Amino acid sequence: MRSSPMSGERQGQVRVVFTPSGKRGRFPVGTPVLAAARSLGVDLDSVCGGRALCSRCQVMVSEGEFSKHNIVSRAASLSVQGEAEQKLQLRGTVADGHRLGCQATLQADVVIDVPAESQVHRHVVRKPDEAHDIRIDPVVRFYYLEVPAPVLAAPSGDLQRLQQTLKADWGLDVHGCAFGVLQDLQSVLRTGEWRVTVAVRNSNQIIAIWPGLKERPYGIAVDVGSATMAASLCDLTTGEVLASAGLMNPQIRFGEDLMSRVSYAMMNPEGEKVLTDTVRRAINELVTLVTRQAGVERVDVLELTLVGNPSMHHLVMGISPVELGVAPFTLASDAAMDLPAADIGIQVNRGAHVYALPCIAGHVGADTAAVLLAEAPFDLDAVSLIVDVGTNAEIVLGNRSRLLAASSPTGPAFEGAQISSGQRAAPGAIERVRIDPNTLEPRFKVIGCDLWSDDPAFSERASDIGVTGICGSGMIEVVAEMYLAGILDPDGTIRESADSGSPRIVADGPTWAYVLSEGSPGIRISQGDVRAIQLAKAALYAGVRLLMDRLGVGKVDRIRLAGAFGSHIDGKHAMVLGMIPDCDLDKVSSAGNAAGTGARIALLDRSSRALIEAQVRRIEKIETAAAEQFKEYFVAAMALPHQTDSFDELAKSVQLPGRQATRANQVYQPRGLPNS
Amino acid sequence: MRSSPMSGERQGQVRVVFTPSGKRGRFPVGTPVLAAARSLGVDLDSVCGGRALCSRCQVMVSEGEFSKHNIVSRAASLSVQGEAEQKLQLRGTVADGHRLGCQATLQADVVIDVPAESQVHRHVVRKPDEAHDIRIDPVVRFYYLEVPAPVLAAPSGDLQRLQQTLKADWGLDVHGCAFGVLQDLQSVLRTGEWRVTVAVRNSNQIIAIWPGLKERPYGIAVDVGSATMAASLCDLTTGEVLASAGLMNPQIRFGEDLMSRVSYAMMNPEGEKVLTDTVRRAINELVTLVTRQAGVERVDVLELTLVGNPSMHHLVMGISPVELGVAPFTLASDAAMDLPAADIGIQVNRGAHVYALPCIAGHVGADTAAVLLAEAPFDLDAVSLIVDVGTNAEIVLGNRSRLLAASSPTGPAFEGAQISSGQRAAPGAIERVRIDPNTLEPRFKVIGCDLWSDDPAFSERASDIGVTGICGSGMIEVVAEMYLAGILDPDGTIRESADSGSPRIVADGPTWAYVLSEGSPGIRISQGDVRAIQLAKAALYAGVRLLMDRLGVGKVDRIRLAGAFGSHIDGKHAMVLGMIPDCDLDKVSSAGNAAGTGARIALLDRSSRALIEAQVRRIEKIETAAAEQFKEYFVAAMALPHQTDSFDELAKSVQLPGRQATRANQVYQPRGLPNS
Repeated sequence: MRSSPMSGERQGQVRVVFTPSGKRGRFPVGTPVLAAARSLGVDLDSVCGGRALCSRCQVMVSEGEFSKHNIVSRAASLSVQGEAEQKLQLRGTVADGHRLGCQATLQADVVIDVPAESQVHRHVVRKPDEAHDIRIDPVVRFYYLEVPAPVLAAPSGDLQRLQQTLKADWGLDVHGCAFGVLQDLQSVLRTGEWRVTVAVRNSNQIIAIWPGLKERPYGIAVDVGSATMAASLCDLTTGEVLASAGLMNPQIRFGEDLMSRVSYAMMNPEGEKVLTDTVRRAINELVTLVTRQAGVERVDVLELTLVGNPSMHHLVMGISPVELGVAPFTLASDAAMDLPAADIGIQVNRGAHVYALPCIAGHVGADTAAVLLAEAPFDLDAVSLIVDVGTNAEIVLGNRSRLLAASSPTGPAFEGAQISSGQRAAPGAIERVRIDPNTLEPRFKVIGCDLWSDDPAFSERASDIGVTGICGSGMIEVVAEMYLAGILDPDGTIRESADSGSPRIVADGPTWAYVLSEGSPGIRISQGDVRAIQLAKAALYAGVRLLMDRLGVGKVDRIRLAGAFGSHIDGKHAMVLGMIPDCDLDKVSSAGNAAGTGARIALLDRSSRALIEAQVRRIEKIETAAAEQFKEYFVAAMALPHQTDSFDELAKSVQLPGRQATRANQVYQPRGLPNS
Repeated sequence: MRSSPMSGERQGQVRVVFTPSGKRGRFPVGTPVLAAARSLGVDLDSVCGGRALCSRCQVMVSEGEFSKHNIVSRAASLSVQGEAEQKLQLRGTVADGHRLGCQATLQADVVIDVPAESQVHRHVVRKPDEAHDIRIDPVVRFYYLEVPAPVLAAPSGDLQRLQQTLKADWGLDVHGCAFGVLQDLQSVLRTGEWRVTVAVRNSNQIIAIWPGLKERPYGIAVDVGSATMAASLCDLTTGEVLASAGLMNPQIRFGEDLMSRVSYAMMNPEGEKVLTDTVRRAINELVTLVTRQAGVERVDVLELTLVGNPSMHHLVMGISPVELGVAPFTLASDAAMDLPAADIGIQVNRGAHVYALPCIAGHVGADTAAVLLAEAPFDLDAVSLIVDVGTNAEIVLGNRSRLLAASSPTGPAFEGAQISSGQRAAPGAIERVRIDPNTLEPRFKVIGCDLWSDDPAFSERASDIGVTGICGSGMIEVVAEMYLAGILDPDGTIRESADSGSPRIVADGPTWAYVLSEGSPGIRISQGDVRAIQLAKAALYAGVRLLMDRLGVGKVDRIRLAGAFGSHIDGKHAMVLGMIPDCDLDKVSSAGNAAGTGARIALLDRSSRALIEAQVRRIEKIETAAAEQFKEYFVAAMALPHQTDSFDELAKSVQLPGRQATRANQVYQPRGLPNS
């Protein structure tokens, strides 16, 4: 057997190497590239099964790769373009320099590159806040089929011939078929003249069918919060987010906080039904918004994922939230739920399903499960603390060997509620504050304007939005800065104005208040406001401390702050305030909208569902209300700041460049935590 | 180790033998009988799990069994009755002499009898027409549970604790839970104070839940025919039929026969929907009838089975029947269907499912699958021919090694349609006929009167019901008798009256007719009527012959005639007429309502479902319209009678005692079948 050193052809065979996988093999001349790829297990997409219809199997001939692979790609390595390919290239569906893997056949040794967009199991590259890339392997995939027509001599059901084709062409044993598909099957097969596209879910159930070729299934990740709801529409094939939308939760008219809605449900006949119908209608509205935005038909939405806190989760599902409002705060189920979207009134394709991530415990919801999925602390050796602050703070602590979760009753202060000048994070809200420790004069930033308030151009630039209140992250900063500036005692008392002589400190009944902004409305930080923040941060810290105790660690390796609030707060101020435990500052970061990201992961990567279900089963659920130490930690954590390890460094780091040490450092010795 | 010859006690252990299973073992004194039975795998029922609530585990101490089992049961072999048992005995729930297996404990060597009604896997003894006993092992079973209440320190979902209890108490890994159950779960658990009964389907899904103890699940077997519909309500635990009801299929107003209904569906907008709604409403009416009759609540119906011909099957399922009306007569699916009853609008428990037996081919429906299940020809070495005559004749032929099925287009003559004096089998219809071969005088019987028409008391006794027409089985007999009496030529021509001089033969246009009854209305058998029966019997015979060819047999070992028509026709006359092939007369019998029996088997015995699905998959489907020989056989089978083997014997056997040989025997030599 002889072969030239420059060519691997022997007995009519050619060598092929696929990049980036590096998979290689020998094939007879004339083998289609797609067939070669499949036989080598190369990840090359195809919906139409090699019929030059879907254009998914585009490849490129790599030039100059011969040194690495010892193979030369030559101009004639692949067959010349046929009519089908030329047509698609003219139409622009096949890019210049690309070839259709199902049409091009091997003619000589060649290196073939499979670009990312032609791979089935591609990844979506993570965004800045996200912990990892998302693997794309959706539960719903499309398959184009040419089903044999029935013949009189060998009777068989239409469904059976279709299933046999799925097996023969795609190797899929699909035994299930949605009842609605079965009802339409005969007419669709005949309309499509036996050419149809089926949507197969979990590789085992046909959930939708169309005549002819259909290419793109879409999915929507839905995050239902007590205050706001959000949805992202994704292309299930590419993972791309095509549209996103948010809404206020319309249940707010039945009560600002969850407990008042639960009360509404209990006090009114049909109350639960009203709450359920309201939130389901809002989900449908979100579906309308994102499908319109993306120019996608509702019927092309074939999968949804749902996350939310336990009460929202239960209400969307039509399960009473009443048990979640009373001890022992029992969930109807802490398993994931997977059911037809129509069963909860979501109007998309009638074969579409909703996958709701599992709730973890009565106060730790599917939203936290989603955060967990997005953050994947179970993949790390480092001990992560993940905090998602809302009306409650959901806390997850641990690493690959153990995970613990709890919810701390922080109350709504971090959301700007129950604060005299508090407001939600919206344009006009103060979100950043600095106080000069010498003059006690403040400067601040409001949402919607990128200038500090002491910038000469601020008044003009912020005139449209105004200064309307202070949001949660602003409260964290102002209280921390007030403390650093010596305005607050370590126990949180606002010192009387005589101590500083500053006109910013004014009498407010029997106590004092700090005037942050003198405009109209004036923004004052009252003693009550400081107390509310103290209570909230103490609750959060006590919950974290409890988990650290249970895990047996005195320090966490990294802290991730999730959610809208987590994205806005400054880790340094949070640590000065004693909200979060001691940690290297460069290991404290925002996790962005981790719940939304987790919902999207569950939508795009089928394996993530079993993963999060297993993690939620093994997670240790800690009920703060049942833990004796919680109260003790809570009381101890009321002081400002309650920890010493890195306080000096921290205090320095929040100073503005060139400023002196804080008055707090000069005048007070921080008291530190009680010995515990 | 010593033991007295009369006692097996050793080291505080006693011996126990359970009858009828013969299972035996040694147990510590004080072991409850139920526990001993379970550890030995003895089939002893219990719903409440041994809490003296359900009274299902009743047993008896067998006396005098010591010689067989070498064990003496003595008066004190079991513990004395406690309070719970005495109460139940006073209430009559525990029979005299019976003990509760969960309460009575072993005290000395004993033989314990488990009566049939205390066994889980009992059998229902077959009725005269039925082929075998029915094993009772329903898909839905009840389990009584005492679920642990939730505790704050160890949060877990209500569903998860319930599932853990099912596992701990009953060894069941039930992962599924109907969404409706999940929605009610929390309130039912609390209403029942953590004591609930769950209905579990297929050992893997919770489909219903009640507070407290609930004992009896019910099911309904539904048979949807083109003309009539029937339902039987069964106790799923005992297998007992508690109520049965029938209705005319209200679709009849859209067309007497299937094809006119299919036309209606095609010609009218919403036509299919109207047909579907109509038949579903009728099923709900049947449910109303049988539940009322049995005094059972609709919500206690937890399972249904459905059989019917392909068109009825598809229409009930909301699948268009149009493809079944045109070649190649393609089913949407030839698999069994299992779906929530609510999905096809049947109003029973919302967790109930409908199991529709598989259709076999475009003209061989789920009703034939049910007949197959009832008759079980696949369990026999003997070759069975099973014929179910309706508008089409469904034919199954074979044995344990091979099974074939076909449908022959007999038309509606066997149902009394398209016959001049024809009518359905109903009171007043002539169903039995004898013709004196000498005088050509007839005598007959009508449905609803047990006297022959030549009985002096007949006129008076039949005066209420009258003589209104002739039904299918009457037509078989009259045509056979006309032939035996020499009124008919072998080619089916009615001989002119001059041949016999009988006033019973009268001119009827260019042909002749036989006057069967002179009353009002007069019942005449016209030449057209004879031709209609000839066509029908030729179609049936040709179908049978085709299957025999394919199976490679010249003779069948046994013939079972199914359906209402099959129950009424006389095998002998059918053979004289040449409807069915040669067979020992004592091997020809009625299978009764085999389709209904099959539906009941599928309802009561879960294993029967996999069995019939496997049999239907392996059955060879023969399309008569696609077989060349069919037409040839059909033409050949028009003659009367077309077979010779046992004709003389047969002809003799239909004579009345003491009569002479028939004129047919004297005058004609039967022509027999063409050589083929």
